[in-house]
Amino acid sequence: LQAMKIINIKELARELKLSASTISKALSDSHEISEDTKQRVLETASRLNYVPNPYASSLRGRKSRNIGLVIPEVTDSFFSLAINGIESVAKEKGYHVLICLTHENFENEKTILKEFQGGRVDGVLISVSSETIHSDHIKDLISKGIPLIFFDRICEDVQTARITTNDFESGYLATKHLVERGCRQIAYLSISSSLAISNNRMKGYKQALKDFKIPFEEQDIVDCDNDYIDNYEVIKKLLGNKKRPDGIIACVEKFTTPIYLACRDLNLSIPRDVKVISFSNLEPATILNPSLTTITQPAFEIGKAAATILFKSFEKKSFKLELESIVLPSTLVVRDSTLKV
Amino acid sequence: LQAMKIINIKELARELKLSASTISKALSDSHEISEDTKQRVLETASRLNYVPNPYASSLRGRKSRNIGLVIPEVTDSFFSLAINGIESVAKEKGYHVLICLTHENFENEKTILKEFQGGRVDGVLISVSSETIHSDHIKDLISKGIPLIFFDRICEDVQTARITTNDFESGYLATKHLVERGCRQIAYLSISSSLAISNNRMKGYKQALKDFKIPFEEQDIVDCDNDYIDNYEVIKKLLGNKKRPDGIIACVEKFTTPIYLACRDLNLSIPRDVKVISFSNLEPATILNPSLTTITQPAFEIGKAAATILFKSFEKKSFKLELESIVLPSTLVVRDSTLKV
Repeated sequence: LQAMKIINIKELARELKLSASTISKALSDSHEISEDTKQRVLETASRLNYVPNPYASSLRGRKSRNIGLVIPEVTDSFFSLAINGIESVAKEKGYHVLICLTHENFENEKTILKEFQGGRVDGVLISVSSETIHSDHIKDLISKGIPLIFFDRICEDVQTARITTNDFESGYLATKHLVERGCRQIAYLSISSSLAISNNRMKGYKQALKDFKIPFEEQDIVDCDNDYIDNYEVIKKLLGNKKRPDGIIACVEKFTTPIYLACRDLNLSIPRDVKVISFSNLEPATILNPSLTTITQPAFEIGKAAATILFKSFEKKSFKLELESIVLPSTLVVRDSTLKV
Repeated sequence: LQAMKIINIKELARELKLSASTISKALSDSHEISEDTKQRVLETASRLNYVPNPYASSLRGRKSRNIGLVIPEVTDSFFSLAINGIESVAKEKGYHVLICLTHENFENEKTILKEFQGGRVDGVLISVSSETIHSDHIKDLISKGIPLIFFDRICEDVQTARITTNDFESGYLATKHLVERGCRQIAYLSISSSLAISNNRMKGYKQALKDFKIPFEEQDIVDCDNDYIDNYEVIKKLLGNKKRPDGIIACVEKFTTPIYLACRDLNLSIPRDVKVISFSNLEPATILNPSLTTITQPAFEIGKAAATILFKSFEKKSFKLELESIVLPSTLVVRDSTLKV
């Protein structure tokens, strides 16, 4: 395979017997250049297969035409659907989405944002990791003039746009649903004590218990993590207790499989012995055994809203990101895992 | 929010009373610069929060330190796991992965590769869309000197590295398993007649039918597409036939939910009336109703192998990509959806 030569502006200029600056102006559709010349330059550029170097033009205009997307993982339906929403907006604007995964690790997140300071992206959409305990790295990036928007997982102390769902209300709704289906001891599986989504859902859960006069005990809050095997063990221990819960709220999708497997291995029936509800965008929720009752987040719409606001801030320098706060409601979808038997 | 000034090499040079070229050489750890000076430059760079501009250095070295990843979608467990494999290698090399989605659309794929010609990425990993009917856009990119590697979904006429799984054997194995479990009329759900993965799996299926003396009829090959509702309708029609299949092989994961729902809506029991096997990396396969027999691809390993070869080609100019062809075997995981009843 022989590498074809990449034609640059200088070579185009030589070919057309024009100055490089004329070529450059013609390609950027400047009013200083006649229509005839523009036409001639475009035809030759096309014939010689000239491709503009995005780095050269970014040095001039400081535009990378990339947006950075920082998320914990892609093996989660919420994030994969949110990506589709973000992409749908970016594509329309001629932007690429640079997807960076933190794998729920704080150090990874700091490294990624540090690198974004160098002009690799024009703006950032972020859903922070479950280990993110402070926001200096985020404030630092914003102070460099790079717009940043939170979606779903936010840092509450950073003044910028945030697109979230009604976490408190959803936690409340999930708990209320379980109480109405007869549960009297409900466990809440938390992903992280530092994440606002996890805490707000938990606050809704606690408020509902209070309102429905169900006694709350500290051990009903169960800290899970990002490891599949760990979670299975923790859940199995919880359900193996003599005084085991009769209802479980999983605050993220990834707890579903370990919950179902722990029940199976302990010969506990869902929903007879334990009712289960999960925050989840899992498409196969409906074909699980039993089908899973979910709190379903508007994932695509959250991604779309976040990207839309970012582009607004690109287009209008006076746009005040810190005034933008959008809450899109989630939906309770009742299925067999919370059936009254 | 006031934007902090971004410190560049010139300003670092002024601060340190050294030439810009000395600073630049010190930062790139050149042997021409003393250890003392290097130390002094690094300390000052760190104190003033200097961040290298990746575009400036790419113009010099033609290195973007991005690799482009072109895939049909992220809402598929194979691709989300493959991304993790690719990321694990890229991270180690200090590279970012620019993930671009074609949404199974040929025009999108052409646009993405065209833009990659401009130096935005140093190399490309691609799994082509189900609509990709020729490979001119791929050959064009390679001819510009940008290394490109296929994984999973390849174009057979392009001479470059390819990391695939044993599609023919897996199709054969899936069919053999269904025959052994008593199926006598097996339908094959295809994703695209232009995709090698779909065709090779189908060839394995046809060979197994032949070997086991099961008559094959053209209508046993069912063309599905990327639309959930379309697929549900096609599958429901297939299973609503008087002469309906007693076994189904789904060549991609996304057919699973529509198959299960069509069976439920037609009051057909899996596995009693219809046995189902799917190419799938779905984590919840084990908790479906019934649990799903799968051909599981080594998704993480495929991504990792593809990225490893790409970096080899970066490091050694004489590396011959077209000689690299790796086949990693998939695994049959037997569960209840193919139970003999």
